[in-house]
This record gives sequence, structure tokens and C-alpha cells, in this order.
Amino acid sequence: MFKKLTLLACAASIAALPVHAQDKEKKEFPAPGEIVAAAKAQEWVAIAPSDLLVMDLAPLGEKPRRAVIQLMPAPFSQGWIGNIRKLAAAKWWDGTSINRVQDNYVVQWGDATEKKALPEGLAVVPESEYSTRFAPGLIPSQWVGGMRQPPVTVVSRRHGNLYPEAPNLGDPYGYAYSFVGGFPLSLSRTESVNGTERTITPDRIWPTHCYGMVGVGRNLSPDTGTGAELYTVIGHAPRHLDRNIALVGRVIEGIEHLSSLPRGTGPLGFYEKEEERVPILSVRLGNEVPDLQLYEYLSTESASFAAYADARANRRDPFFIKPAGGADICNIPVPVRRKQ
Amino acid sequence: MFKKLTLLACAASIAALPVHAQDKEKKEFPAPGEIVAAAKAQEWVAIAPSDLLVMDLAPLGEKPRRAVIQLMPAPFSQGWIGNIRKLAAAKWWDGTSINRVQDNYVVQWGDATEKKALPEGLAVVPESEYSTRFAPGLIPSQWVGGMRQPPVTVVSRRHGNLYPEAPNLGDPYGYAYSFVGGFPLSLSRTESVNGTERTITPDRIWPTHCYGMVGVGRNLSPDTGTGAELYTVIGHAPRHLDRNIALVGRVIEGIEHLSSLPRGTGPLGFYEKEEERVPILSVRLGNEVPDLQLYEYLSTESASFAAYADARANRRDPFFIKPAGGADICNIPVPVRRKQ
Repeated sequence: MFKKLTLLACAASIAALPVHAQDKEKKEFPAPGEIVAAAKAQEWVAIAPSDLLVMDLAPLGEKPRRAVIQLMPAPFSQGWIGNIRKLAAAKWWDGTSINRVQDNYVVQWGDATEKKALPEGLAVVPESEYSTRFAPGLIPSQWVGGMRQPPVTVVSRRHGNLYPEAPNLGDPYGYAYSFVGGFPLSLSRTESVNGTERTITPDRIWPTHCYGMVGVGRNLSPDTGTGAELYTVIGHAPRHLDRNIALVGRVIEGIEHLSSLPRGTGPLGFYEKEEERVPILSVRLGNEVPDLQLYEYLSTESASFAAYADARANRRDPFFIKPAGGADICNIPVPVRRKQ
Repeated sequence: MFKKLTLLACAASIAALPVHAQDKEKKEFPAPGEIVAAAKAQEWVAIAPSDLLVMDLAPLGEKPRRAVIQLMPAPFSQGWIGNIRKLAAAKWWDGTSINRVQDNYVVQWGDATEKKALPEGLAVVPESEYSTRFAPGLIPSQWVGGMRQPPVTVVSRRHGNLYPEAPNLGDPYGYAYSFVGGFPLSLSRTESVNGTERTITPDRIWPTHCYGMVGVGRNLSPDTGTGAELYTVIGHAPRHLDRNIALVGRVIEGIEHLSSLPRGTGPLGFYEKEEERVPILSVRLGNEVPDLQLYEYLSTESASFAAYADARANRRDPFFIKPAGGADICNIPVPVRRKQ
């Protein structure tokens, strides 16, 4: 009878599940977690310590609370990420706090007083940096938008008025989606028409607001924020924020220390009382952290990632009776594990 | 400077925001929450007390913890909902517990011992009930899939091979999506070809696994669960579960008492120790609850809901610089409020 309690979970675990050899041999269609567990060692990519941002909250009782953020790779959001490196080097966040927890939305941290002086030399990043111009070679992934096809120029011939102009590759917020360097991205397109021939070309590419992604709070446009005020997504992906706020990374471990915090009772989930705020002891780049735990992510260019993504979109393992036939990008979280 | 802290929130609040008259006059494009706040009284639909399932958890300190679930209307999932009514009438859940909290996934409750006898007369519901055959008139909504168009038969003419067979209305998990009676639904389609004319007709329709939706845990197929073991979604929509598990309702108030619980440290987020489980004091249908708070939802057939959904897909209020141009169904939560 124990099965009844556990099977819903087996059905859809987002984390990699342990694979028992005897189970594996029996299964024609492995679950996503089993594909990840069986990935080859060389399909995992080490995350450089200098690309980690390590945030230690005040312990809960005697329990330490550490959240580890992987910063995004170039060419995405590098202006803000440069600021964040400076803020961490200046120990700017030490003594600040978690100030806002809004259910199904975000946890936000920074200086609650908004009076703390910022380090000198922070860049003012323009809004144009919310997305990046697409260039061939930027996306080495073989896997885009639920289909295994390259995100290169798509040429289609237009004969009628009732068809949409291009295939929708499964992202209501863009033309297609893909992954670069372990991060989820969405693309827009441009179109050109020559007689009956219509050419669709990827245009801009930007990171997407999935669960655990970390972004930069800002004031009204043209302000784009410095990076001192950060938030992470703890609910359904608020994709309408894409291209409106800078995304700089994602929480790869310890998000439960943020997502399970009591919800703020003030407007927008802000804590109303000083004592509700969770103190931040320190935020450091990984290379400044003693005895740092190292991590690696499953290369989003690997064959195992393609198989994993395909299995996320079409679950064929025993629990499932109806594979979905598709997936949104935020339902294909990039697997991360501690480095052995 | 206070703005900097609050504006991210203004940008994307899922709950209705208070509207200040002077702000409203200034704004050409109201935010979704402002549209909801301005909806006419007759656009709100009262939820019958008998369609509410009220779950009281053990208080946290002196703080009561109540979660209120709205059960789905006919014709969806009625077999399981009938069982749930019987289980509540039998006070079956009293003394059971929350047993599982998996981050970015589900909170699950029921009898941890799996030995408690079920009431007699529970229906065994077939898998075919995971979805419902589409019938004209089933969807009165004027709003489907991010476009204002009826979810009726779509006829398109096929001249080439490179176009997809039908417009994708924004749901990677179905042909289109819509709302019925305050609930989010996805549709599949059938196609018939006659010469160059291709007719697309909606086929099946089913509820979708959005944040806060409540479903029925089950064992391996052909088991479909009784309704005694329930879960709610507390993370990004696990839409791959659609059509694989019965959905019976959604949490309309108090989900924070579930979503902010400590994550279970056992496999799949199960609590490992008896004392971690949160006791359920009682679960009752609303009509059995003294001094019941009443609720109403914004009619998904109303003009205000259409405007709200459109604004969710195309944010034009001051914070936004780039409207998304689309939305997934789970990013358009149906507004609910306490009845005055």
C-alpha cells in the first residue's frame, strides 16, 4: 500500500531519482530522472566557483540556511552580473535581509532601509541588455521548443491567410525556446517576404523567468536596477517579466530556505515588522567561500539532456497513461548535482 | 526610494491590487488587478457553500490555519468529487495529516498509515473521466488561448506542407485553452481533410494542473484513486500530469498554509518523522461549516475577465516596457474574493 502514497511523486519528480539497476533493466522507457542518473560523466559541466553566489541566512534554530546561485554566462546580463560581483566583493549584502515573500511569486532581498550606500563604480545598464541579438553559433543546442531541430532560419511558403506565419514551437511568450550554457532562453523572430516566400529568422534571445531564476529589482523605466535588490521566483513562472527585468542566475541549491518562508502579510508580500525579516549573514562569490561545495549541471548540449527534455515532454514511464506531447520551457529544469 | 522595493511587485501582482481613484484616472492602461477591482458586481459569481471543501489544520502557535478549496463544476471529475463529498460527510480526513511537501511540486495529504478504512459506496471512476468530450455550448467563454475567438470549429485551407495544421493558441500541452465556470481547461482536437479543406474540431477538454489546483493521488493504472489522498500544486504548473490524474478543485484561500510548510526531507518530499506531519483537524463541505466565509469568482465569461486575461498577456501598465504578447493558461489565475 505504500505505493499509493509515493506514486504521484514518482510520476513527476523534478529532481533526479535514484535508479536501481534491476528496475532500469525492466523499463523500456526510463523516466527523466533515470535518464539524468544514467548520463555519462563527460556530459556534466563543472560550474566555476567564481560563477556561484553563496548566500547564508541566519540559521533556523541550529539549522544552517544556505542558498547557492549560479550566475548566468556571457553574453547574457553581464552588466548587472559585474555589479553583483562588486557588491559581493564589498560584502554589501552582509547585514541586509529577506524583506518580501509573496506566495506563488517571489522572494526578494536587499537593504530594507534603502539607505545603505552602494559601492562605487557600479554600471548603469541599459534596457537593451534585457535581451541579446541572436547570432548563429550562439545556440549550440540541438534541441529547441520541444522539437529536435536547429533554431536556425526557418523558411516557409505562404499561400493562404488562415495559417499562422510560423510554427509555434511551444512558447506562448516567444517564437521558440532553447537552452544555452545550462540556462533557459526564449527567442523572438523577424520575417521577410519575397513573393510567396517568407523567411523567418531568429532575432533576439533572452533568459526566462522560471522557478528559481534570480532577477534584479528595479524602479520605473528607464531605471534597470543595479543588482543590489534581488529576487527569486517561488511560484508559477511569471514569464510576463521576461525582457522587462534583468535575470542574472538561478538558485541551484537551498531554494527551500526561501520558498518555505512565511508569506509576508503586507501589500505584495512585504514583511510588515522588522522581526519578520530574515537576516542575511553573508553573500560571497564561490571563490571566496572556504570549503565550497562544487556543483555541475547536465550540459544542455548533451545527448542525455536532449533525451531528458524529450522525456519531460512525453512521459512514457509506467505511471503515465497519456504523454503530453509537449512541455513549456520552465517544465524542463536543467539538472544540477553536487560534484563528487 | 521606497518605490524601488515595491515596483517589482506592482508589475506582476497576481492578487487584485487596491486601486486609488487618482491613479486610475491617470492610467491609460490599467493593470490586471485594477481591471478586476473595477469589475461590476454582477460579473462576480457566488460560490455555493456546498462546492467548498474547508480544511482546518492544527494551528501554528495560536494562528489558525484554514485552506478553502472550490470543487470543480459538472461535467468535470464528478465521480471523484462525489467520493470527496462522502469522505467529508464521514469526517474521514479528521485526524489525518499533511504527509508530503515537495518543493516546486506538491503538498499531499491523507492517511499516512494507509490503513484507515474508507466509507462504503465510493465510486470507482474510469480513466476516461480524466477528460470530457467537447460539446458546443460547453465553453461559453469568448476568450480562448490568448486570442479573443470562439473555441468552436476552426476551418482552415491547406495549400502547403510547411505550415502547421492548425494555429497554436498558446498551449504547448493542448490545441487551445479556455475557462469554464471559473476553472482553467485545455482542449485537444480532431482533424478531417476534404480536398484542400481541413476542418479542425475540438475533441476532448480537461482541467489543467495550475498552481493551487487540487488532484487525486493514485496508484498505477488502471487505478484512478478514490479522492481520499489529495494534493495541491505549490510550484510551476506540472502540466504533464494533465489527463493522467484527476483534478477536482483549487485552493481559493489559505494556500500559504500549505505552500510555506517545511519541505519533507525524505524521497519525493515525504516527511520522515511522525512529528513533522501537520495534523488535519477537520475537512468539511462548506454547508457544514458554522459561520462560513463566502466567496465569489470573477465570471470567466465576463467582459472584465476577458480584459483581465488580455492584460495578463499584454501588460501595458507603467512598469512594463515590453508586453509579452501571450500568456500560458496558468499565468491567468481566475480572480476570487471574499464575498462582502
